[in-house]
Amino acid sequence: MGNIVKQLAVLGSTGSIGQQTLEIVRAFPDRFQIVGLAAGKNINLLAEQIDEFKPRFVYYQNDGAQARLANAEYELLSLEEIASHPDVDLVVVATSGKSGLIPTLAAVKVGKTVALANKESLVMAGELITSEAKLNGARILPIDSEHSAIWQCLAGEKQPVAQLILTASGGPFRHYSPAQLKEVTVEQALKHPSWRMGKKVTIDSATLMNKGLEVTEAHWLFNVPYENIKVLVHPQSIIHSMVEFMDGSIKAQLSYPDMRLPIQYALSYPERLPNPQLPKVNWENIDKLTFEQPDLNAFLSLRLAIDAGKKGGTYPAVLCAADEVAVELFLAQRIKFVDIANLVEQALGQHQTIAHPGLEEIMAADAWARQKILHIVKGRNL
Amino acid sequence: MGNIVKQLAVLGSTGSIGQQTLEIVRAFPDRFQIVGLAAGKNINLLAEQIDEFKPRFVYYQNDGAQARLANAEYELLSLEEIASHPDVDLVVVATSGKSGLIPTLAAVKVGKTVALANKESLVMAGELITSEAKLNGARILPIDSEHSAIWQCLAGEKQPVAQLILTASGGPFRHYSPAQLKEVTVEQALKHPSWRMGKKVTIDSATLMNKGLEVTEAHWLFNVPYENIKVLVHPQSIIHSMVEFMDGSIKAQLSYPDMRLPIQYALSYPERLPNPQLPKVNWENIDKLTFEQPDLNAFLSLRLAIDAGKKGGTYPAVLCAADEVAVELFLAQRIKFVDIANLVEQALGQHQTIAHPGLEEIMAADAWARQKILHIVKGRNL
Repeated sequence: MGNIVKQLAVLGSTGSIGQQTLEIVRAFPDRFQIVGLAAGKNINLLAEQIDEFKPRFVYYQNDGAQARLANAEYELLSLEEIASHPDVDLVVVATSGKSGLIPTLAAVKVGKTVALANKESLVMAGELITSEAKLNGARILPIDSEHSAIWQCLAGEKQPVAQLILTASGGPFRHYSPAQLKEVTVEQALKHPSWRMGKKVTIDSATLMNKGLEVTEAHWLFNVPYENIKVLVHPQSIIHSMVEFMDGSIKAQLSYPDMRLPIQYALSYPERLPNPQLPKVNWENIDKLTFEQPDLNAFLSLRLAIDAGKKGGTYPAVLCAADEVAVELFLAQRIKFVDIANLVEQALGQHQTIAHPGLEEIMAADAWARQKILHIVKGRNL
Repeated sequence: MGNIVKQLAVLGSTGSIGQQTLEIVRAFPDRFQIVGLAAGKNINLLAEQIDEFKPRFVYYQNDGAQARLANAEYELLSLEEIASHPDVDLVVVATSGKSGLIPTLAAVKVGKTVALANKESLVMAGELITSEAKLNGARILPIDSEHSAIWQCLAGEKQPVAQLILTASGGPFRHYSPAQLKEVTVEQALKHPSWRMGKKVTIDSATLMNKGLEVTEAHWLFNVPYENIKVLVHPQSIIHSMVEFMDGSIKAQLSYPDMRLPIQYALSYPERLPNPQLPKVNWENIDKLTFEQPDLNAFLSLRLAIDAGKKGGTYPAVLCAADEVAVELFLAQRIKFVDIANLVEQALGQHQTIAHPGLEEIMAADAWARQKILHIVKGRNL
């Protein structure tokens, strides 16, 4: 019996998740075929990927570099056009920050299956995306390791859950005091103890903003109230998250921290594929798994993100936009590590929210927050 | 919408698992009704249970005490008759040792659903019971916490698994040297660090025989080859077992050690019921979960049990019978703790196995092993 070859579009193919997605595609050429690739400005790598995978549809941020990719035959389309193209079976949204929102929405509006690595889409527009997905029969499959873990634990379970327990490595500054956090450098913040990831998400992991965004993402993906979503620090990053059911039984999903497993699961679902390249847990080398409560005082971003999620409206869009700009400013060494959360807090404090926002209102809140952060920073003459 | 009230027969109702089963029934009177109760010699407790649950069918080991139970209206039946009665929806087999075998077989032969706490049935006659169950459309639902954990982790998963990881508390003598094990008293062996259980299974947990029996039980319940079943010591008894899937992803089931959860899950399956009496894991009180490899040199019983399972035939029946008698002798302080395994080893060494045995051959092997142990012990003038 032949396998069905899934036709994939990978948005953000030159990023960390995008590259790892292509590793999985490479390992299973009889299962997956690339029909679309989209990247930002890493034109050299995109050109190599086009050479190797020969996609029919390509997008990249065109600023005069088009000549470099001219040898291959492909159609240049927009992100939305690729995400919603009839010949695409599954769209991997692996772009960073807000750029995932529009194509994700385009894909769910035409009932596509979306493998979602971009958490900002659901944080900014969770209500909009999930209602459109429901309306059009689209499925959103999580690629984030925590949400993949929860999704795997929910397999075969039909009833509402008692609790989701999102695990967090705690990042590189787990036991830092507020005073120590003030002195954190870009170099330190980019060294994550257990995961290899892109820069934006690595900084978000260091501030715990990432975990806060994941709480909102989990809320929308699994339709669980915020009060039933807990964060638990687990530095070894072996348990990727847990679900407590209504009888008190808990299921956890475990593996070494390697994004290729949740990526592969989202691509191959509902099947699991044996892949010798994926590391298998060796219990002879694991003597303990440890757990701690998160420090909500030291890590303001986590609290801000959960609060913004609970308040809803356009607050989460402001949170994402403010964080994205603030992280860029930190990476450019224009603000300090702790300023990221402080700036986000200021933007949220000055925002007038709109309930049940549409896309335009979300984009307006996003633009407002970006302006606001730049304005605050300028005013402080940083 | 009304719930369907399941009609239950509880075999071994006065034992530890039996009493906890009745606790669950008591908590959900609109879900479960007791139609049959069967006990051994604890006539006083059985009389109380009959008073409370008013079963239609009763069995007990009748040695003149019948008068005590005469007030209630019930029909005296054999274990097999209760287990296979048309008015019974689900049979809980919670008897100890080999007494579960005949009624389990009777139940699966008429296509009943059996909630099985008695591991000896499957160890002694796994091939026979599982083939009869398949033939007659019977389901065997595990009550053992490890097998319940595996069963829960398998929910929604369709493909063969890579590995089952049975966790073991390691018992009260986890780091004992062979010399220390020689001095173990009955009192020490009856103090299990994490579980409250009957005497037989508590001693089997101290020798790790219990874990060896569970390997064979898992083999038959889940149709997984022995080489893909591992034992991992986990002293906190929070992770009750794990399943590794073919992509390397692992699922684990967690809860405080309390048999009422797996009992309730087997009774309520495929539903989960909220039960305030069941303890919920408090992650603020759990700072670590630890893991070790089992010591197969110090704990000979574990090795013997796995070997007997792998060899198959009538070896597992001999193992169970020899262990049952040896544990009784130990509890009666007639042999030492380490003699349990030594006696089992001698019986296995002298046994002539029969491949694919029927019930009579299994019972003959059982009788032979019991005789053999008593003969050896007598010869040693212990």
